[in-house]
Amino acid sequence: MAKGFRQKIRLKNTENSGFGSNASGRFINKDGLPNVQRRGVNVFNRLSWYHTMLNLSTFRFLSYLVIAYILINIVFAMIYYLIGVEHLTGIDKSDPLNEFIDVFFFSSQTFTTVGYGRIAPVGFTASLVATFEAFLGLLTFAIATGLFYGRFSRPRAYLRFSDIAVVAPFQEGTALMFRLAPYKNNALTDADVILSTAIEVVEDGVAKNNFYRLETHLSKINTLALNWTVVHKIDENSPFYGFSEDDFKNINIEMIVQIRAFDEVFSNTVVQRSSYVSREIIYGAKFTPMYYPAKEHLTTVLDLDKINEYQKADLPVREEEQI
Amino acid sequence: MAKGFRQKIRLKNTENSGFGSNASGRFINKDGLPNVQRRGVNVFNRLSWYHTMLNLSTFRFLSYLVIAYILINIVFAMIYYLIGVEHLTGIDKSDPLNEFIDVFFFSSQTFTTVGYGRIAPVGFTASLVATFEAFLGLLTFAIATGLFYGRFSRPRAYLRFSDIAVVAPFQEGTALMFRLAPYKNNALTDADVILSTAIEVVEDGVAKNNFYRLETHLSKINTLALNWTVVHKIDENSPFYGFSEDDFKNINIEMIVQIRAFDEVFSNTVVQRSSYVSREIIYGAKFTPMYYPAKEHLTTVLDLDKINEYQKADLPVREEEQI
Amino acid sequence: MAKGFRQKIRLKNTENSGFGSNASGRFINKDGLPNVQRRGVNVFNRLSWYHTMLNLSTFRFLSYLVIAYILINIVFAMIYYLIGVEHLTGIDKSDPLNEFIDVFFFSSQTFTTVGYGRIAPVGFTASLVATFEAFLGLLTFAIATGLFYGRFSRPRAYLRFSDIAVVAPFQEGTALMFRLAPYKNNALTDADVILSTAIEVVEDGVAKNNFYRLETHLSKINTLALNWTVVHKIDENSPFYGFSEDDFKNINIEMIVQIRAFDEVFSNTVVQRSSYVSREIIYGAKFTPMYYPAKEHLTTVLDLDKINEYQKADLPVREEEQI
Amino acid sequence: MAKGFRQKIRLKNTENSGFGSNASGRFINKDGLPNVQRRGVNVFNRLSWYHTMLNLSTFRFLSYLVIAYILINIVFAMIYYLIGVEHLTGIDKSDPLNEFIDVFFFSSQTFTTVGYGRIAPVGFTASLVATFEAFLGLLTFAIATGLFYGRFSRPRAYLRFSDIAVVAPFQEGTALMFRLAPYKNNALTDADVILSTAIEVVEDGVAKNNFYRLETHLSKINTLALNWTVVHKIDENSPFYGFSEDDFKNINIEMIVQIRAFDEVFSNTVVQRSSYVSREIIYGAKFTPMYYPAKEHLTTVLDLDKINEYQKADLPVREEEQI
Repeated sequence: MAKGFRQKIRLKNTENSGFGSNASGRFINKDGLPNVQRRGVNVFNRLSWYHTMLNLSTFRFLSYLVIAYILINIVFAMIYYLIGVEHLTGIDKSDPLNEFIDVFFFSSQTFTTVGYGRIAPVGFTASLVATFEAFLGLLTFAIATGLFYGRFSRPRAYLRFSDIAVVAPFQEGTALMFRLAPYKNNALTDADVILSTAIEVVEDGVAKNNFYRLETHLSKINTLALNWTVVHKIDENSPFYGFSEDDFKNINIEMIVQIRAFDEVFSNTVVQRSSYVSREIIYGAKFTPMYYPAKEHLTTVLDLDKINEYQKADLPVREEEQI
Repeated sequence: MAKGFRQKIRLKNTENSGFGSNASGRFINKDGLPNVQRRGVNVFNRLSWYHTMLNLSTFRFLSYLVIAYILINIVFAMIYYLIGVEHLTGIDKSDPLNEFIDVFFFSSQTFTTVGYGRIAPVGFTASLVATFEAFLGLLTFAIATGLFYGRFSRPRAYLRFSDIAVVAPFQEGTALMFRLAPYKNNALTDADVILSTAIEVVEDGVAKNNFYRLETHLSKINTLALNWTVVHKIDENSPFYGFSEDDFKNINIEMIVQIRAFDEVFSNTVVQRSSYVSREIIYGAKFTPMYYPAKEHLTTVLDLDKINEYQKADLPVREEEQI
Repeated sequence: MAKGFRQKIRLKNTENSGFGSNASGRFINKDGLPNVQRRGVNVFNRLSWYHTMLNLSTFRFLSYLVIAYILINIVFAMIYYLIGVEHLTGIDKSDPLNEFIDVFFFSSQTFTTVGYGRIAPVGFTASLVATFEAFLGLLTFAIATGLFYGRFSRPRAYLRFSDIAVVAPFQEGTALMFRLAPYKNNALTDADVILSTAIEVVEDGVAKNNFYRLETHLSKINTLALNWTVVHKIDENSPFYGFSEDDFKNINIEMIVQIRAFDEVFSNTVVQRSSYVSREIIYGAKFTPMYYPAKEHLTTVLDLDKINEYQKADLPVREEEQI
Repeated sequence: MAKGFRQKIRLKNTENSGFGSNASGRFINKDGLPNVQRRGVNVFNRLSWYHTMLNLSTFRFLSYLVIAYILINIVFAMIYYLIGVEHLTGIDKSDPLNEFIDVFFFSSQTFTTVGYGRIAPVGFTASLVATFEAFLGLLTFAIATGLFYGRFSRPRAYLRFSDIAVVAPFQEGTALMFRLAPYKNNALTDADVILSTAIEVVEDGVAKNNFYRLETHLSKINTLALNWTVVHKIDENSPFYGFSEDDFKNINIEMIVQIRAFDEVFSNTVVQRSSYVSREIIYGAKFTPMYYPAKEHLTTVLDLDKINEYQKADLPVREEEQI
């Protein structure tokens, strides 16, 4: 197959993807992040904890905050306990467990600066630790404030991509299409798309990736409020020119998408990426419309649940395909 | 009408608006947001709560904060009440209502971390809830801090558009004009305008929108400190070429405006959009000046109340219009 | 003078400054803000309080915070006083002044959430007001946090412009020059300059401004670490071509400068503007160097105090000037 | 040497680096900051304290916060002590040291707004100071919140550059190469490189720097996930054309690199710079690969520890070099 296939691609391998021709596996994951593992350096230098905290799910982020809060209080409770409960007023000294519970709550009342005062430090050591704990508490919540803000003010495109791409009839020929739609109440303008593809070829028994830029029928739109169907026409300038249904199935293809738009609430450019590999491309299909005029024709309705809806479609037969 | 009208527009329908030709209703609302409803997905996924919070009016935003504060305290008051008022010191136990009032205020003193200590928790359960409430309180105010900052640091253009556009005499012909002015103490530089229009045509009894880019006489200015009158000359390159007063009234037109500028305080690009539909276009009128030299000629005065002021103006008669 | 002067300027009046030809006074103040007054609309709509707070000097900003803090506490003290001091524990009731002082401090302890508890509310009304005050206090400091951050994270170029521009010998002719230097420990890269000028002409007894773009000898530099002398060569393409020393003195000229650069700490584009009017242009002078190699030649020293230093310089005599 | 060397460089000295030809020492330090000292103006005006705080190491930043906290509390403790401990409740008056310790802790409990109330102010003066201290405390933590956020949200490229550059065989000739790789879990896209060089020449016994832009073989890549080897081909358009191994050793060369990319988490452009001087350029060497397919070929592994690994490589001999 490889040999015949090589003859089909007449274009120069010009795209500079940043991935070497002998990188392996999917290049870009569905979520847009590159599929690369880093080794070397130590793990702390290799992680940007800010990037990590921003990429956590809300549930995990909050869980980490709660766990950190409990652990810090246990540590300080142990310190106060070691210093001695006699240096705190109002402690229930009926038994050691009650003592520990009370110093734990004293710690939390200090860390959050609630400071009821029912339990309060007396003497130098306990007071000093409490002084430091209150300070640490405020800094911790200062950091939490920054992380919360960083998380929710992070400019994001909130685009939903169709799970599949289709090879559909287009004008007199065929085109590779996928679509996307904004799914939140954000307003995107001046959107553009950059499309490229990796095609794996086997030369002398060695698999190797070639990268190509893919032209799109319309690469810019003014307002990204409805769905956008991105169309790559499969003509002489396409690396897919002459590909049969089997080629799309059997050759390792990865199509990499980058959408860039301006969000008016963030007043910032937002970027979202995704990719389609061979098994996510359906040959001979077309998308069905996903928006329609509302009653009274006063607005337009976009039905996001239809983003993956398509129907079978016959493709025109071109002479070249019989080769 | 539709037929004669089609002959008048000699330009190709080239603008990629992002709206389909069978979208309906006004495309862009006066406030610049697209007139689209989204369905499908569930409502929580469809809303970016950050976009929602930033788009609320100040009054509603503050009201929501106050309501949330009261509700949270009622919930915690109920929890403390269920745990039992004997686990809190200093409660007025004269009757159940007074008890509830006191636990409510204990809750608020904990949530805000004011913690007077007149009422304070004793025993494990009440202390644990208070520990959690103080923590929740700090995180809530952390989020509020982020939202306040997000709201007031959000880069905005603060432009006022004239409510109406006019078809006015310009050079030897006519031009479609509207104007805008910055109305706050912000300093905008390097402003540019992008102008496009949708024109509804009826083909075979089906209404359909065509989109055109509109050329502007000057599309960039250095300093946007006074008003800016945007001028689209109606000549051979305009889709409005040959439109009569009746055409402007009877044909569904929507002119979409996007202004982009650099704000030196935000150090960010700001964008504002608006649109004009047929009923907001006045045929045969011109704007009256809205700025004038101050006394002593030491500065220039911009009178924002005059932004909609215009006077009737005769348009030159062109031969083409008699067709 | 006006007539002869008009003949000297052979260039078309092409620059779109955003200022009308009959605007008056200096267009851009030395600090880069436009010299325009706005009227109409009411004053609250006309002010962006965020822009106002960011443009205040540090001293005034802090003063406003302190004054607001005192006023808020006086208002709440009055409310508590009206409710009755018997609803607060621990009040010194020796005389009305002491009572008021104590409720004032109770208010401040609530507003800051310090809540010592020596004075604490009892009963519904006082507790309710305290509940609200603590909430208000936290929101106020949330806003203050945002304003502090907005103020110090605001991207700024920190450039110092020379107070004067000079008409200096340059290559075989003359050039209009001024210079600028970064004066803080910020690192600016990819700087460029946009230069334009307004020249007032009198036509039929009416003063009118013409605007011209001025070419610069080098309009981009990679690293803005030393001083940058911006050079506008006065040749056939300059509106100042043929201007005599008297012309520079007698004609109302305003040269408007905009510097744009990338700051690597803010990771943002920063812009700074300034302007030079006729009386700030010195004819026949050149700047003296303001940087020199350090001892040992290991680094370069930039002496910011020399930014305005110049010496007299003879200009080459051109034939055209004798006209 | 200088004379022969001058003949070798046939290119015009066109790059506008922003450094004068008589600046001295390395221009750009390894960390990308310019090697310039500023004098004049006073030191407070010359420092942007925000830039300073953002450039501090985490350890020093936290240390400064702790030191500031302790100093502020000592100052307030002294004020309360001078006012008199009789104006504070609950002070341990056994001896002056204990008194001072207690007022110190009262100060810290006020500054952090923990306010246990065991020690509380009575009377006007002490209450007033406490009122002010709590206010100051909240503002201080507001500033700290902003600084924390500013520090960790600061967009940075997190690129590691190879310590050395190599002159390696490339196509039929030679090329100057270095490489870089992202070392954290950030995702960079649309990266480009700007490369320039300073070459010191001696004319009439005076050292002088000439600046040149260096062409790169590929100046843009789509995804910066693996390492990027930047290649400057040494051909007729290179200022290094005809340089021998000795020239690279003996001539003062500084190659300045600027990488610019888009980070999808910050949604911002990030820039990182570095430079290579003569002693950091290895003649006749090539880098060894630093990434390889993972087992199962499901992903690609990037080994950051190999970034400086190279092996000796013979360079092709060109005729020009025999001159």
